[in-house]
Amino acid sequence: MKVVMAQRILRANDQVAKENRERLQRLTTVNLISSPGAGKTTLLEKTIAALKGDVVISVVEGDIYTTRDAERIAGQGADVVQVNTEGLCHLDANMVGRALDHLNLAGTDLIVIENVGNLVCPAEFDLGEDYKVAVLSVTEGGDKPAKYPLVFRQSHAAVINKSDLIPYTDFDLETVTREIMTINPDLEIFVISARTGEGLEKWCAWLRDRVREKKN
Amino acid sequence: MKVVMAQRILRANDQVAKENRERLQRLTTVNLISSPGAGKTTLLEKTIAALKGDVVISVVEGDIYTTRDAERIAGQGADVVQVNTEGLCHLDANMVGRALDHLNLAGTDLIVIENVGNLVCPAEFDLGEDYKVAVLSVTEGGDKPAKYPLVFRQSHAAVINKSDLIPYTDFDLETVTREIMTINPDLEIFVISARTGEGLEKWCAWLRDRVREKKN
Repeated sequence: MKVVMAQRILRANDQVAKENRERLQRLTTVNLISSPGAGKTTLLEKTIAALKGDVVISVVEGDIYTTRDAERIAGQGADVVQVNTEGLCHLDANMVGRALDHLNLAGTDLIVIENVGNLVCPAEFDLGEDYKVAVLSVTEGGDKPAKYPLVFRQSHAAVINKSDLIPYTDFDLETVTREIMTINPDLEIFVISARTGEGLEKWCAWLRDRVREKKN
Repeated sequence: MKVVMAQRILRANDQVAKENRERLQRLTTVNLISSPGAGKTTLLEKTIAALKGDVVISVVEGDIYTTRDAERIAGQGADVVQVNTEGLCHLDANMVGRALDHLNLAGTDLIVIENVGNLVCPAEFDLGEDYKVAVLSVTEGGDKPAKYPLVFRQSHAAVINKSDLIPYTDFDLETVTREIMTINPDLEIFVISARTGEGLEKWCAWLRDRVREKKN
């Protein structure tokens, strides 16, 4: 595990995002965005384990101060670079570009960027990824897509996580799915419990297909 | 319910926060900060109901686009001003100052500012409040205080919410409480289920004491 510290943004984000995208031409890149505690890291741990031997995943871990998430991902045997934003509330393309310098890109099929836990700011920054994926946990409540529409509008897929807790909450899956589709009808929606593994296979199949598609 | 739109920040935040503080000399002001979906609005609904006839609460509702939370608070009979940040990820002192123009300050004991759902950025802005209160839901996971220490360091109290869901999660109350105390040993910690009402009385008593203290 390596640690990269954030530096002042020296160049316009979109230009650097374009450069990242050129570097990642043969790779598939997914940018995971959610509130703190929606379960991005657990989802990623389980995804790495499920795709092992099939898709080689490398990870860029965005965190404000700690290396906790990166340690968990390294525990899965994946190559991981920690980007420490030092207080900043989102990753930008510069940080990701510098993180890519530390990854073995030639030996990677899929890069997953785990953004800082924040449902607002990360949606505004193109990192050079192919797909933004919004992760929403059922315990956050079903009103979140309407309250934070930008991230759902910008995303290609949405993971509704912690489905094992639906019976203990007021979360109405049908209504929320309808609300999400109103914001972005093209969104692929996956209902998952990263903790129990429920629904994980469909999500992994989607990732596998995206990787194949990009390679051909 | 009134709606105030955010405007460009014209003056330094801290100067305006100081002016807000002077205006609110006789009032107690609490700034609620949490991730999206930690349960700030439900906590506030239940708090208003519990303190009815005892403490008059007015509310400044920070939201990015919608007026959903303000409508819920208005449903409790409280005076509420919606601040629409139009994409911005936090409230600042200017927005709160403009919201105060629309509240009946003379008839209010306690102003609760419900910040935008974001565990990072709101902690950096003084709004002129007396107390910042961090709300953490058990479903977010126990690693959040260490990962987002600034808000816990800046706060005077922390509410650990959704305690009714502890049995269905890996949340270890004792360990998390210890971690929070390491970050900020002066923090008052309340363990609450806003949904079931568990632990609400102690929190309301704390608010009642703060209001009395400020008035004398």
